Amino acid sequence: METLRESLSEKSSSVEAQGNVVRALKASRAAKPEIDAAIELLNKLKLEKSAVEKQLQASIGNGSHNREAFRQNVVNTLERRLFYIPSFKIYRGFAGLFDYGPPGCAVKSNVLSFWRQHFILEENMLEVDCPCVTPEIVLKASGHVDKFTDLMVKDEETGTGYRADHLLKDYCNKKLEKDLTISAEKAAELKDVLAVMEDFSTEQLGAKIKEYGITAPDTKNPLSDPYPFNLMFQTSIGPSGSSPGYMRPETAQGIFVNFKDLYYYNGRKLPFAAAQIGQAFRNEISPRQGLLRVREFTLAEIEHFVDPENKSHPKFSEVAKLEFLMFPREEQMSGQSAKKFCLGEAVAKGTVNNETLGYFIGRVYLFLVRLGIDKERLRFRQHLANEMAHYAADCWDAEIESSYGWIECVGIADRSAFDLCAHSEKSGVPLVAEEKLAEPKEVEILVITPVKKELGLAFKGNQKNVVESLEAMNEEEAMQMKATLESKGEVEFYVCTLEKNVSIKKNMVSISKEKKKENQRVFTPSVIEPSFGIGRIIYCLYEHCFGTRPSKAGYEQLNVFRFPPLVAPIKCTVFPLVQNQQFEEAAKVISKELASVGISHKIDITGTSIGKRYARTDELGVPLAITVDSDTSVTIRERDSKDQVRVSLKEAASVVSSVAEGKMTWQDVWASFPHHSSAAVDE
Amino acid sequence: METLRESLSEKSSSVEAQGNVVRALKASRAAKPEIDAAIELLNKLKLEKSAVEKQLQASIGNGSHNREAFRQNVVNTLERRLFYIPSFKIYRGFAGLFDYGPPGCAVKSNVLSFWRQHFILEENMLEVDCPCVTPEIVLKASGHVDKFTDLMVKDEETGTGYRADHLLKDYCNKKLEKDLTISAEKAAELKDVLAVMEDFSTEQLGAKIKEYGITAPDTKNPLSDPYPFNLMFQTSIGPSGSSPGYMRPETAQGIFVNFKDLYYYNGRKLPFAAAQIGQAFRNEISPRQGLLRVREFTLAEIEHFVDPENKSHPKFSEVAKLEFLMFPREEQMSGQSAKKFCLGEAVAKGTVNNETLGYFIGRVYLFLVRLGIDKERLRFRQHLANEMAHYAADCWDAEIESSYGWIECVGIADRSAFDLCAHSEKSGVPLVAEEKLAEPKEVEILVITPVKKELGLAFKGNQKNVVESLEAMNEEEAMQMKATLESKGEVEFYVCTLEKNVSIKKNMVSISKEKKKENQRVFTPSVIEPSFGIGRIIYCLYEHCFGTRPSKAGYEQLNVFRFPPLVAPIKCTVFPLVQNQQFEEAAKVISKELASVGISHKIDITGTSIGKRYARTDELGVPLAITVDSDTSVTIRERDSKDQVRVSLKEAASVVSSVAEGKMTWQDVWASFPHHSSAAVDE
Repeated sequence: METLRESLSEKSSSVEAQGNVVRALKASRAAKPEIDAAIELLNKLKLEKSAVEKQLQASIGNGSHNREAFRQNVVNTLERRLFYIPSFKIYRGFAGLFDYGPPGCAVKSNVLSFWRQHFILEENMLEVDCPCVTPEIVLKASGHVDKFTDLMVKDEETGTGYRADHLLKDYCNKKLEKDLTISAEKAAELKDVLAVMEDFSTEQLGAKIKEYGITAPDTKNPLSDPYPFNLMFQTSIGPSGSSPGYMRPETAQGIFVNFKDLYYYNGRKLPFAAAQIGQAFRNEISPRQGLLRVREFTLAEIEHFVDPENKSHPKFSEVAKLEFLMFPREEQMSGQSAKKFCLGEAVAKGTVNNETLGYFIGRVYLFLVRLGIDKERLRFRQHLANEMAHYAADCWDAEIESSYGWIECVGIADRSAFDLCAHSEKSGVPLVAEEKLAEPKEVEILVITPVKKELGLAFKGNQKNVVESLEAMNEEEAMQMKATLESKGEVEFYVCTLEKNVSIKKNMVSISKEKKKENQRVFTPSVIEPSFGIGRIIYCLYEHCFGTRPSKAGYEQLNVFRFPPLVAPIKCTVFPLVQNQQFEEAAKVISKELASVGISHKIDITGTSIGKRYARTDELGVPLAITVDSDTSVTIRERDSKDQVRVSLKEAASVVSSVAEGKMTWQDVWASFPHHSSAAVDE
Repeated sequence: METLRESLSEKSSSVEAQGNVVRALKASRAAKPEIDAAIELLNKLKLEKSAVEKQLQASIGNGSHNREAFRQNVVNTLERRLFYIPSFKIYRGFAGLFDYGPPGCAVKSNVLSFWRQHFILEENMLEVDCPCVTPEIVLKASGHVDKFTDLMVKDEETGTGYRADHLLKDYCNKKLEKDLTISAEKAAELKDVLAVMEDFSTEQLGAKIKEYGITAPDTKNPLSDPYPFNLMFQTSIGPSGSSPGYMRPETAQGIFVNFKDLYYYNGRKLPFAAAQIGQAFRNEISPRQGLLRVREFTLAEIEHFVDPENKSHPKFSEVAKLEFLMFPREEQMSGQSAKKFCLGEAVAKGTVNNETLGYFIGRVYLFLVRLGIDKERLRFRQHLANEMAHYAADCWDAEIESSYGWIECVGIADRSAFDLCAHSEKSGVPLVAEEKLAEPKEVEILVITPVKKELGLAFKGNQKNVVESLEAMNEEEAMQMKATLESKGEVEFYVCTLEKNVSIKKNMVSISKEKKKENQRVFTPSVIEPSFGIGRIIYCLYEHCFGTRPSKAGYEQLNVFRFPPLVAPIKCTVFPLVQNQQFEEAAKVISKELASVGISHKIDITGTSIGKRYARTDELGVPLAITVDSDTSVTIRERDSKDQVRVSLKEAASVVSSVAEGKMTWQDVWASFPHHSSAAVDE
C-alpha cells in the first residue's frame, strides 16, 4: 500500500503540473490582462515538449493504471461488504442511483451526526427541514429553471443523449494520449480546447464537435447540434396538471424562502446561520465516476446571514492558527501547486475575502480531518474569476484527492445578497434585516389589514389561509385589489394553500399606503454558504481509509478500512473464542450492555478461526474486537496495531464505549490494562 | 387543561360509540355471515334513536368545538415558535407541504435517533438507504402504478379536482348534523353510506353523487364522473424521456429488491430484519387535516423476513407481560370499545396471528410511550377482513387519539410472501431463502457463465456492467440469447447500467441448463412490516404534551410542552439572572461544556424578567433551565414541577446532561442537591 501511495503521489504531481498549465490558460481567458503571460508560458512549455511530454505521457498512463487498480480494489470491497449497492440491481440497476447498505448507512449516519454536532450544535445554527418537491416559482426565482442545464447532443438515429462537453473532452484526451503522430501545433490546440471548453458557448461547442468529426461513441452515427437540457427532475403538484414542480437540485432555497421567519426567531439579530440536511436531485445526462456523480444525493448546507458591512467573526481567533494546503487564485494562474498557508495570515492579507468565510474554511478543515480525511490530500482551492457567478464575492472549494483526481466535496461561497434579493423580487416579500439608525428618515409603506371578523364569518375554518394569503400580497397586487374593491366592491382572489379562488368583499380587508418615520437602516444580508456533498466526502473517506496488509500466515493480502472510531460503521465485534455455551452467554451479556449504551456492534458465534474473524471485521473497518476466552475476563484487540489487552468481563463494554465515543484513546487503554499476546492467532 | 381533557375524553367516548356502529356495519358488508346481526343491531339502535341521537348530536357539536379550540391553540403555538412552517410561505404556501423549523427539526431528529436505537441497534437490523427516484418497473411490480389511486371528480367548468369520497362524506355528515328535518329512514341510509363507502366501486360512488345532486363545493358547478387518479409524483429518469419514474410512495420497495444481498449479508440465516428511514411522496388530490395528510413525509419502515412455517420470536417473552389498549376485530364488530389486553394472552389465544407480529406490537407500544405518547390515548386496532389485502395474514394499526380523532400512526402487517413473490416474478431473480433438507431431491437449474477474458477484451472498463447484466438475465431471456447466439453467433444486448446496447458474441458467454441434486428446501419468506409515519407520530406527540397553566402573577394562561427530555428540542436554557459581565461569562463556560458533550441548549442574555424567560422556554418544551445568580453556583429549574435546586457552577453541565440523557431523573437530582426557592420569580 505504501509503495502504491508513493507512486500515486509521484504520478499525481506530474499530472498536477499539467493541470496547472491548463488552469493558467483558463484563468487567462477570463482575466484578459494575463493572456500574454499565459501564452508565453505555453510557448516555453512547447519548447521543452518532446522530452517532458513523453515522460509525462508515460507517467500518466502508469499512474492512471495504478489508480484504476486501487479504485477497483476499494470498490469491489465496498460492494462485496454492502457499503453500497447499485439501486434496483435485480432489475439490472439504473445509472447514477445507489443504495447504502448496512455498513454504508452506519457510516453516513455517523458522518451526519458529527456534522450536526460540529456545525449546528456548536455554532447554535437554526436547522430546518423542507420538502424535496418544490414549486416552479421558487426555482424560477433562484434561476434553476432557466439556467440549471448541461449541453446535450443526441445520436441522430437512436436518440441516445450524451453530454456534449464529455464527448469533446474524451476526443481530445484520447488524441493526446494515444495518437503519437499528431503535430506539436495540433497537441497545443487540443490542450487549449481542454482548458477553455468550460466557457464555450453552445455554438462554439457545436462547431468544435463538427470540426473534429465527433460521432456517437456507441454507433458512430452523426450527432445533433448541442442544446441545453435542464438537469432537474420535473413533476406536477396536485391533480390539475397546472402546477409544475421539480425535485430540488439543492437544499439552500428552502432556507432562503424562510429567511424572514428565521430572522425573527433569532430575535432579529445578525449574524446567524441556518442549516439543512436532505436529499437533492440532478437528472444527469450520462452519470460517470461511480459514486461521485449520481442522480440523487445527500447535501448538508449552511446559509450564514451577515451584515455586508461587517463580515468579521467573533470566533475567528479559534481557527486563525490552523495551517493547511490552500490553492489561491494567484498560485493557480502562475502554474504553482497548492501549498501550506496559515489561515489567519491568508485572511489578513486578503487572499481569503473576509473573516467569516475564513472561519468556515477552518471549520470545514477540522470537520474533514476529524472524519479521517488525509490532510495531505485535502486542499482549499479558490475559484478563478471565470468560475464564479458575477455576484459572488469569493469562493473556495474543499477538494479531496481520490483515484479520480481532486474532487470538489465542499463549496464555501460568499454569495453576497443575490439569493435573498432574487426571492424578494419574485415574491414581493422583503427579505431584509434592520439596524437602528442614529437619525430617523421618512418612508411610504404598504399596510394590509384583513378584517378577521368578516373573514371568519365568510370562510370559517379556511379563514387563516385567506388571511395569510392577503397579507402576503406584494405592493402591485395589493394596489390592484384595492382599486377593484373600490370600483366593484368584490374581487376573485386565488388562495394557494386552498388551491382555489375565493371572493373577497370590500369590508373584508383594508389596504392603504402610509407615511412613516423610520429609525432603521434596512438592508439585504450577505449569505456565506458552505455546501457539503455528503456522498462524495464518504467516498473519498473510503479511499483514504482503505489499505491492504499481508496475512500473518501466508501470501494473502487482507483489506482493512482504517476508519476512526467516530465514523466506523460498527464500533466493536464480540467473539466467543470457541463455540461453547458459557462463552456465548458471556458474549450476549456484553452485547446487551453495548446495546444499552448505544454502541453498534456485532456478535460472531461462527466456528471460523479467530484470525479469519478478525480479517472479516478489519474489512468492515471495525476498530475493536472483544474475544471471550474465559468467564471472568476477555481480550480487546485494536484493528490498526493488532495489539491486545486483557480486561475483566465487567469492564469490557465500558472500555469499548469510552474509545468509541472518543473519551479515551487506544493509547490510554494500552497504558491501563495488562497486554495480551496470542501466538496462536492466524493473522 | 385537565377539564378540557376530561371533557374531550367524555365526548370522544360517545363519538366512539357511533364509530363502533359504523365499523360494525362496515365489517358486516365484508364478512357476509354477520350481515343479519349488524342489521339487527342497527334496528335496535333506530328504536332508541330519538332520545340517544339528540344527546349524541349535542355532545358531538360541543366536543368538536372544544377539540377545534384546543387544536387551534396547539397549532398556533407550533407555528409561532417555528416547530413547523407552511412551505414556501412567501409564495403563499402550497397545500400539503410543510417545513420543520428549528425546534421541529430537533424533535424529529431526536425521534429518529431513538427509533434507530430502539429498533435498528437493539434488534441488530440491517439499515439501508435507497433513492426516492424509483423506476417504473419496480412500482409496476409492487402494484403501485396500477392501484395506488384515489377516485377524483372534476368541476366540469373550472377543472378543479376533488376527492370523490370526501365530497360524499361531507354531504352525509352535513345532512346528519345540520338538517333536523330528515326522516329516520334517510338518516339511517346516510349512516349506512358513511359506513360502506370505502368499499364503493367507481360506479357506485358516481351513482351516489348523482343521486344526492352533489356539486362542486366552491362553484356549485356540476361534477364529472369519478375516475382513478394515481397518487404518485411522476417524473422521467435520464435525458431520453423514455424512462418513466416516480417518487417512491413508501420506502419498503427499496428493501424488497435488495432481499437477496441482505440475506447473504446476514449469513443466509432467517429471521432477520432490514430497516429504512426516508422521504416518501403522495400527490394528494386535496390535502386536509394539516400536518396529518401531507404530500411529502418521513417514513421509518422495517421489513422482518421470517420462515412462514415458524413465526415464533426468541425475545417475545420480553414483551409478553405488557398490558395496553387493544381493539381486536371481534370487539369492533360487536360494537364494543378498545380494552386492555395482556399481549402474551392475545397471542396465545390467536387474537394476534403470531409471536413475531405480537413482538413488534409490543416494541411499538414501548417506543411510543417512551416518546411521550399518553398510553390511555393509544390503542392497537386490528384490521377488519375487508380492510386487509387478500394476501395479508393479519394487520394491526397503532392509533393515537388526537383532536382529529383516532389517527393511524404505525401499521404493523404480516404481508406473507406477497412482495418478494411480486419482485421475483417481475425481475426473474428468485428472492428466496433456503433450508437444509434431510433428504436431497433433483432439480433443473439455469447456469449463465460469462467468459470474463473475452468480455474484458471487448468492453474494458465496462466489463463489470456487462457481466452483471448477463448474470441477471431470467430464464426466458437467457434461453432466447442462447438460441440467437447459436443461430447467428451474435446478439444485441441492452445493459441498463450503461444505458445502451452492446454486442454479445458466442464466445463471450455460456448458457446451459443443468440437472442438480438439491439438499435444500427453497421458499419465499414471509415479511412482517411495521411502518411508522414519523410526522403523524410527532404531531400527536405535540398534542399529548401540550398544556396550559395560569401564570403566577395574573390571569394569563401560559403554554407548555411537557416533552420528555428524550425528545425535547432543546434540553436546557442558560440564563444570567441579571445582565452582568461576570454572570454572562459563567453562562458561556457552561454553554461550552454543554456543547462539548452534545447537549442542545440556548443562552438567553436578554434583560427580560426571569419569569418571562422561563415562560418562553416552557413554550418550547425545554425541560431544564440553569440560572446563573452567582459566580460559584447556579440554580437548575425543572419545567413541570417548577422546582429548583442549587448546584455548583462546575457540576451544572454534568447534572443537566445526565438528566437529558436519561441517566438520572429529576427525582434523583431533587434528592441529591439543596432545594432553592425564589419568591421573587414572576411565574
